[in-house]
Amino acid sequence: MGKALIIGAGGVGRVVAHKCAQNPDVFEEIIIASRTLSKCDELKKELDGGKTKVHTAQVDADKTEEVINLINRFRPDIVINVALPYQDLSIMEACLATKTDYVDTANYEPPEVPKFEYKWQWAYKEKFEKAGITALLGSGFDPGVTGVFTAYAQKHYFDEIHYIDILDANAGDHGYPFATNFNPEINIREITAPGSYWEGGKWIETKPLEIKRTFNFPEIGYMDIYLLHHEEIESLAKNIKNVKRIRFWMTFSQKYLTHLQVLQNVGMTSIEPIEFEGKMIQPLQFLKAVLPDPATLGPRTKGKTNIGCIFRGIKDGKPRNYYVYNVCDHQECYKEVGAQAVSYTAGVPAMIGAMMVLTGKWKKPGVFNVEEFDPDPFMDALNKNGLPWKEDFSPEIFN
Amino acid sequence: MGKALIIGAGGVGRVVAHKCAQNPDVFEEIIIASRTLSKCDELKKELDGGKTKVHTAQVDADKTEEVINLINRFRPDIVINVALPYQDLSIMEACLATKTDYVDTANYEPPEVPKFEYKWQWAYKEKFEKAGITALLGSGFDPGVTGVFTAYAQKHYFDEIHYIDILDANAGDHGYPFATNFNPEINIREITAPGSYWEGGKWIETKPLEIKRTFNFPEIGYMDIYLLHHEEIESLAKNIKNVKRIRFWMTFSQKYLTHLQVLQNVGMTSIEPIEFEGKMIQPLQFLKAVLPDPATLGPRTKGKTNIGCIFRGIKDGKPRNYYVYNVCDHQECYKEVGAQAVSYTAGVPAMIGAMMVLTGKWKKPGVFNVEEFDPDPFMDALNKNGLPWKEDFSPEIFN
Repeated sequence: MGKALIIGAGGVGRVVAHKCAQNPDVFEEIIIASRTLSKCDELKKELDGGKTKVHTAQVDADKTEEVINLINRFRPDIVINVALPYQDLSIMEACLATKTDYVDTANYEPPEVPKFEYKWQWAYKEKFEKAGITALLGSGFDPGVTGVFTAYAQKHYFDEIHYIDILDANAGDHGYPFATNFNPEINIREITAPGSYWEGGKWIETKPLEIKRTFNFPEIGYMDIYLLHHEEIESLAKNIKNVKRIRFWMTFSQKYLTHLQVLQNVGMTSIEPIEFEGKMIQPLQFLKAVLPDPATLGPRTKGKTNIGCIFRGIKDGKPRNYYVYNVCDHQECYKEVGAQAVSYTAGVPAMIGAMMVLTGKWKKPGVFNVEEFDPDPFMDALNKNGLPWKEDFSPEIFN
Repeated sequence: MGKALIIGAGGVGRVVAHKCAQNPDVFEEIIIASRTLSKCDELKKELDGGKTKVHTAQVDADKTEEVINLINRFRPDIVINVALPYQDLSIMEACLATKTDYVDTANYEPPEVPKFEYKWQWAYKEKFEKAGITALLGSGFDPGVTGVFTAYAQKHYFDEIHYIDILDANAGDHGYPFATNFNPEINIREITAPGSYWEGGKWIETKPLEIKRTFNFPEIGYMDIYLLHHEEIESLAKNIKNVKRIRFWMTFSQKYLTHLQVLQNVGMTSIEPIEFEGKMIQPLQFLKAVLPDPATLGPRTKGKTNIGCIFRGIKDGKPRNYYVYNVCDHQECYKEVGAQAVSYTAGVPAMIGAMMVLTGKWKKPGVFNVEEFDPDPFMDALNKNGLPWKEDFSPEIFN
């Protein structure tokens, strides 16, 4: 049916490529492109022999011209951007220049002012409309599936949704006392940044990790959850009428927080270089070198993730609660695509988002978040592509 | 009266030098010697103008020949060894060769096999006897004052001491989330080494930090204490007849233990070099460079230390309890001698030990631990030299 250019060959890119290749009727050809060609070639080797034709290319996605050249060379129907969030705008510009549909999983943030906001990408709405192309923003799990869950709840179960709690649990255990999947700097920023939630039509800011609850996650059990700012709150607040409050919660173990706190206390997470034996060294860079290589975590991570949403609202004048969630197993993901659940849960929805656009189900000119489309075909595709969801009409409710 | 050679110009050496200079009738001349001459000269500058005449010299105390030359040059009556424990034997050899009395604060440990034991130094007993000189071992606070406290209890309050608990509390706060006074490697060895205590005539080994209690320290309050091995247990077990059990306890805050544990977990305390940007770097060395400079801790450390012994036994057929302790204030020590209480409590007794030998009160040929002498003049000197002690005849007792 179509041709997709996947930009990014990290964990998420790997999942997207595998999942596209599992749907060769939709993805007849894929081009895997990243800064490091060898990673793309490695993926191609794994996928060659299937029905989907696989190409690879080297690209620096910071440079719009390079992306334009790549698009002109391969003429994809859609670009699946799973590179760095910093690169969203340069890739969107290339899509505009070549009139190519676009999908990503995380919203743009300027490298200097880390702030998760859609404003930079929403500003492209008119340009995409005029160009007659679709940009689908934030089609990962959260944001992404959480927005689809919301649209699904709105369509089938509620007249009005008043409260949304998004709950993201990772009970994965890599067996190390401490390791990070990704840049510890981002981990640290996450837990040291103020939290915020949407209530009564405005943002309410909290101190870092100020609000904590305990939640009994299906198939996992009790875990501590902390209120964080998260980008889908912004789009849901705009797109869900009559919503009174939207909160996002993420699990952190006490052990994880303690390790991060101590490393910060002693200065090991600082990016301020210190002089060491005549050389300037960033403590954070040295810490990264001491910590386990993130690439070694995948095969050894055991346990599950559980991401979902609890909705409370009104249907036919009566109060209603609804919890919809997906449970994903790290080891099973790794067996299937060579990446663990954190990458898997982001990569599968990126593929599905592209599938929605390619098949015309979610194809319309402009810049959109996932909750603005009919959720049914996406929900159906989740069940068929490794992220089945479950419903609970009397979930645990917390305030 | 006499001339003392002080080897070592670190925190403890600084205290010894200042305290000798405060007793010019006993210490008419002192020679401060260390590997780094500038440290000695700095001390001399602070002390010049007093009644005690101050000299300085450079010496590598690992080399017996150098120490012999130094002794021959200055002809001291006694050597006060507050250098590294590794250097005890080379300095004792030099004292033998020159027939000079000797006092130290910490027992010899071989650099390769860290193990606090007196056997290497006790082996010199006959040689010192034959040479007609005195070696006074372990005249710091613990070991040192704790042994004097024991001899004092034995002399004045007990027919038989059955139980000895030595309690060492440091409630000093330097205001940093984490910092170490000395080599973090030694800190880590301390808390990761098995503990041990003496009971029923033999050593009983525990897992590291296995035995924990809480004790309400006078002038400090409740602190967690952990059973550790400590060198004075060995000499007290030998010198105190009928003792049934001797234990040593040290305070560690949960915060301190957590920081050390995390740093160990992530590999930052490893001495195994890793490759970083083409260079081999020991994580522990890099950690030291990131942590606050120990030299900056002195002026900012607030709070008190409390070190003492609780004795339980029999007097005139009746059970008796007795607690004797010293409380020392970090800031007051720093004001007086430019070093905080940890150095102060070790340095003052080293000076007093030398004073006991120089004045003839503790002068006899051989190798001795402090509890083998009459405690009264030492106890008196503690009160006069900044380490007053207090008694409690109904202390809190724990099992």
